[in-house]
Amino acid sequence: MQIITDPKEFQSVCWSWRGQGLTSALVPTMGFLHAGHISLFTWARANAEKVAASIFVNPTQFGPNEDLDRYPRDPEGDAAKAREAGVDVLFLPEPGAMYPEGFATTVSVAGLTEGLCGASRPGHFDGVATVVAKLLLLAMPTTAVFGQKDWQQLAVIRRMVRDLDIPVAIEGRPIFRESDGLAMSSRNVYLSPQDRALAPHVQKGLQAARAWKAQGVTSARELTQRLTAYYKDAIPTARPDYVACVHPETLAPLEDASGPALMAVALFFPGARLIDNLLLD
Amino acid sequence: MQIITDPKEFQSVCWSWRGQGLTSALVPTMGFLHAGHISLFTWARANAEKVAASIFVNPTQFGPNEDLDRYPRDPEGDAAKAREAGVDVLFLPEPGAMYPEGFATTVSVAGLTEGLCGASRPGHFDGVATVVAKLLLLAMPTTAVFGQKDWQQLAVIRRMVRDLDIPVAIEGRPIFRESDGLAMSSRNVYLSPQDRALAPHVQKGLQAARAWKAQGVTSARELTQRLTAYYKDAIPTARPDYVACVHPETLAPLEDASGPALMAVALFFPGARLIDNLLLD
Repeated sequence: MQIITDPKEFQSVCWSWRGQGLTSALVPTMGFLHAGHISLFTWARANAEKVAASIFVNPTQFGPNEDLDRYPRDPEGDAAKAREAGVDVLFLPEPGAMYPEGFATTVSVAGLTEGLCGASRPGHFDGVATVVAKLLLLAMPTTAVFGQKDWQQLAVIRRMVRDLDIPVAIEGRPIFRESDGLAMSSRNVYLSPQDRALAPHVQKGLQAARAWKAQGVTSARELTQRLTAYYKDAIPTARPDYVACVHPETLAPLEDASGPALMAVALFFPGARLIDNLLLD
Repeated sequence: MQIITDPKEFQSVCWSWRGQGLTSALVPTMGFLHAGHISLFTWARANAEKVAASIFVNPTQFGPNEDLDRYPRDPEGDAAKAREAGVDVLFLPEPGAMYPEGFATTVSVAGLTEGLCGASRPGHFDGVATVVAKLLLLAMPTTAVFGQKDWQQLAVIRRMVRDLDIPVAIEGRPIFRESDGLAMSSRNVYLSPQDRALAPHVQKGLQAARAWKAQGVTSARELTQRLTAYYKDAIPTARPDYVACVHPETLAPLEDASGPALMAVALFFPGARLIDNLLLD
């Protein structure tokens, strides 16, 4: 596995794959790799002739009071895991290489970014869209692979790629979970043992919501109220940021959840803000 | 010459050139082609194996009170001129093909877009940066060619291309002028015969400013005041939008014009807003 820190060198290597007619997959990550990331590498390895991965804790998608400085990092362990998973090229840029002096460009996606995480993390999706645009233009893979835990991020990226005519297929992969159902996240290490024990209720609540819909509850308002009450009861130490029932593609809040519906939640635990989601069908 | 209206077809043809290892040049235009555009085609023909040109009057770079609806158009005459100049592929998309239902993405460049034309045309450079990003990603040429009349536009595009890692060289070509010195512009047709007779003073004033600097006037304030007075006297029917002495790369307003300095002007004539610029060295 080749490790590259210089963006232009990364671009040169990845574009040469296109020139050779090889298919390629890019897996952009923020590192501190867990089995969810590895599942993306594995999918990439099975579906493309060349696999690139990036590890970049992108400063522009963190708010001033967020966890940029303490975001967990393990570049050596990550490199070993990426090598093991069959990654061909690992891109590890420094912030100054991605955003050199004078950097001034922002890619924004309207609409999709307004609710859910966008409402409580202003500027977050501008940071995401801009860095993903850069990573896609550097690697120009056949396919870029993202996890569905960040469902809104995936929707924003799909929109941006379509709008800017970036000729890259976007592959969203299912959420990878711990054996007790907690969605894998690099931020799970922030949880106290007590909160870690309660955290599986995040998903259990989503599954309950799916069951309520199956039982005939189609009012989005009632579903979100029931789920909010569930969390209050089951995870008293967490404060919901949002509990939302939205259209899976437009992310517009629903009134009637009888059609396609996504339940998406974010909860502030004392040590970490965790997100999860589930299609209610 | 192939004429293409479908963005995906245009992308397919142009990307195949890269795949074949051919160099290519893209000349993006808004049509109503004049000799200035033709000089860009000619440069492209001489410097690349394949030449693509686009004609698209981009609605998103026009303000609500600007001249989108009456912007001059001549698709058939343009096609004949492009063919004559050796263009291989002419891209003529409809607005609905460039901005389909649900389009939501904007590319913005901070700083460079605040002064000069950006100050009087809010949103203009967002429109320019977004459509040029799309055109570059559709054609992905070796080089994209722009005229220096839109100096600020060129600076914005250079910044965006560098920031987003778009692997395209940007070539800025000298302003092409009528025999009396008026910078060629599709909007010159808006001028009354009387104003057309006065319009060469736009450049004459810029040349005067260069002469003042050569004679030792290095205060940007004095240069712009003298030039403003010149215009008031020589073109009484025009109202200056701005008369600015800026750094040629950062576009920051100068106090001391003894180093690299660009004089950039925009004037509202009764029929049209015209721009011009000159390096004072």
